[in-house]
This record gives sequence, structure tokens and C-alpha cells, in this order.
Amino acid sequence: MASNRVSVRLVAEVTATKVVDLSHPMYEGMPFWPGGVPFTVTRLRDYPQGCQYHKFEFAENTGTHVDAPSHFVPRKRSIDRIPLEHLVAPAVVIEVASQAATDPDYRLSAADLYAWEAMHGRIAEGCLVFVNTCWSKRFSEPERYLNRGADGKMHFPGLSADAAHLLVQRGVAGVGIDTPSIDYGPSRDFVAHKILLAADIYQIENLANLDVLPVLGATVVVGVLNVQGGSEAQARVFGLLP
Amino acid sequence: MASNRVSVRLVAEVTATKVVDLSHPMYEGMPFWPGGVPFTVTRLRDYPQGCQYHKFEFAENTGTHVDAPSHFVPRKRSIDRIPLEHLVAPAVVIEVASQAATDPDYRLSAADLYAWEAMHGRIAEGCLVFVNTCWSKRFSEPERYLNRGADGKMHFPGLSADAAHLLVQRGVAGVGIDTPSIDYGPSRDFVAHKILLAADIYQIENLANLDVLPVLGATVVVGVLNVQGGSEAQARVFGLLP
Repeated sequence: MASNRVSVRLVAEVTATKVVDLSHPMYEGMPFWPGGVPFTVTRLRDYPQGCQYHKFEFAENTGTHVDAPSHFVPRKRSIDRIPLEHLVAPAVVIEVASQAATDPDYRLSAADLYAWEAMHGRIAEGCLVFVNTCWSKRFSEPERYLNRGADGKMHFPGLSADAAHLLVQRGVAGVGIDTPSIDYGPSRDFVAHKILLAADIYQIENLANLDVLPVLGATVVVGVLNVQGGSEAQARVFGLLP
Repeated sequence: MASNRVSVRLVAEVTATKVVDLSHPMYEGMPFWPGGVPFTVTRLRDYPQGCQYHKFEFAENTGTHVDAPSHFVPRKRSIDRIPLEHLVAPAVVIEVASQAATDPDYRLSAADLYAWEAMHGRIAEGCLVFVNTCWSKRFSEPERYLNRGADGKMHFPGLSADAAHLLVQRGVAGVGIDTPSIDYGPSRDFVAHKILLAADIYQIENLANLDVLPVLGATVVVGVLNVQGGSEAQARVFGLLP
């Protein structure tokens, strides 16, 4: 832990006057990955015994959470090895809400990223890239959020392999999305996961309120539980706005 | 959740160039409150099945965590009702490390707070007050951290009732400490808990690295899991330094 004992220089100075919550609340009945472990709260004690006191159980990917590179790739960074300056970093927001509204299987393409860069400049090294699909508005309805089709597959937006490759080239710190996965619903090969995580770029999934972030100029703070050797863990994520 | 959908104005503008981790890592074998639930990780899947995947189990107060006012006081704020501007707020740090080194049962007094104010000015409304006892350096040795005596009671520093009353008067947003509890180890009545939580002031316990924070000028971000109706929950806590 020695490297975390001291303060670490940020990629860019933070200046902010406002905050927005980019994480979903946690509650029994919230969506969770098929075959996974739902969020469960057991009351162990109540006011007549002095105070309320609960036990939690859940899989590491239930709710807003971080995928560490070690989730898919042996010997890559675990949760506790993600550098602090990657957890508090400048945000870049790319919106594909209209595409996702007409095609639930939409995958952010390298062309989308190039179009964004033509308007806003090159995506900076060390930043966090957020893909705003507005899919998070379905979160309170688990069936619509996971959106399983007649084909048995889930259908929600994600990233294409070529977008993932381009983000690796740009040297970003992490990539976040407001759907259950960086890879689109029908994916079986999790190719975007493999490309990003192999490059030690971490992921944030099940984000909320990305539409409140400006395209550029926010700082995002990723308060991920610091699980030693962890492959994924829950996170409270805040956007700090100018 | 409607109030969290939009951005919220902070108590003070944030300007920061550095970050420090104020939370302990989570691992099996970490200290936990006597009679509570230890942190347990169960591996559900490994690389030959595609990826590493785990289940977590723990009590709501294992590791660095927040106590919501509803933990002790019915009808007071639960975790998800703590205002965002109380989770990202200016930090005030009061050190009692030398007192704690000679007396493990040391309780921060109102006199300590008045002495601090005589040097640094009045503790501001809406800030987070951190009591730095340096007890966190024992965290990796659970027996020394809980420090149970021949009397069967735990012995570690905390806050006195008169200090808690003064912090209520000052209108602070929250109070954090680097020991297992805001109340000192031998406490049976949890009087500081009751005074602070009854005033809707939340608490952060089992903090780390408070000695890296400046006395004034840092912003602390409390990334607590947003458990609906929750009485306590784990938090990743960062200090943002000028």
C-alpha cells in the first residue's frame, strides 16, 4: 500500500463548483448480470437492540462497478493496483443516445470517435472516456435494462472493437458506459473488454446521469471499493463540474 | 432519486492538484467489529471459464465506512439521503496523535476544538471534520487495532460528548476518524454517535492516512455505496489537495 500512503499528482488540476451522482442506488430488486448474485441485505439488528445493522451480499459486478484489467487478463492490474490519478481524472463524454434509441445493439465506432475529435480535439492521454447512451434511464426496470430478446440474447449498446483499439492508442485511463457492459448485449467474445483490459485500461459499467456531464471540463471521481487482488468492485462515482 | 439527477452546488469551490487515498484496502483477515461479519470473497469463476468473478459478503461496518444518521436514530437520514454536497466538502483536520499515543482511551474534547479554533479560526458550517489520531497505522494488525484489554473492553481513541455537542453547534456536515468508532473503545452508550447522528451529521470510521491531509484547504470526496434506506455502507474516500 506504500504507494497510496502519499499524495499523487493529478493528470489535470481540478476546479469545480458542482457535483452530480453518476452511480445508481443499490437496493434489493436492482438489475444484476444473468447468472450472477443479486444485492441482498440481511438485517442483523434493529433499534430495540441499540441500532440498525445489516449484512450485504452481492456479486462484484452488481450495480455501478469497476472492471479491473485482471477481470479478464491474468497478471494485469487488480482493483487495488489502479493508480489513484486514474480514479480522479478529466472526463470526455461521447453521446450516442440517438443511435442507441433506434438500434439497441448500437456499438460506438472508431468513426464516432474521429467525428467527436473533429469537433472537440484529440482525446487526451490519461482521461476517462464516458459513452452516454441514455440506456441508464431503463435501470429501474430490470427487464427493459437487460432487454433480453426472443433470441435469448441481451440487447443494449456498447463499444466496437475498433473504438476500443483507438482508445488504447489514445492512452486513456479508463472507459465508462451507462449500460450493463462495455461490450454490447449480444456479445459472446467480449472483444472490447479484452482489448481495453489487456492495455491496463479499466472500465466502469452501469453508470447513471452521464447526460448531466459536459462534453469536456468535468473531473470524475471513481470511488471504487479497494478490494485487494479484486477483479471487479462496486463504485460510487461523482462528476465534479466547473 | 430525482434530487440526484441534477448537479448540486458545492459548499466551496474545489481546487486541487493532488489526491490521497483515505480508505483502507479490503481483504480477508482485515479487522471487523466484534460480533460482526468479516469480509469474505468467494471465487465463482476463473480464467479457464472466461474471466475471474467473485461474490462479496460483509457487514455494513467492515472497513472504511459511513454511518448514516438512521444507524442509531429512527427517521433520520439513511445513506441515500445524505446530500451530495455533504459527500464532497471542505476538510478540517484536528490532530490528537500525541494524546492518543500516551492514552489509548483519549477522547477529543471541546477544549481541543476551541484550541484548534484559536489557531485556525472557527470551524465552518458544512465542512467535514477529521480527527487524526494516527491509530490507523495499527490497521494491518487487527488485535492491536481493536486493542482489547484485560477488562474485555476495546481501547482506542474517539470523541467526547462535549466535542460532539460543539460540532453540532458548528453545523458540520460530517465527522471522520481513523479508529473503529467515533466513540472511544470502552464506550457502551455510544454517546457521541447519538449526539451527532441525531443532528443528521454523518460519520466516517476506519479512515486512513489522515496525516497526509493539510489542517485546512483539502476537499474530501466520500464515495459511499448508495444503499437505499441503508444505515451504514462501505466508502472509498479520497482527499483532494491543493
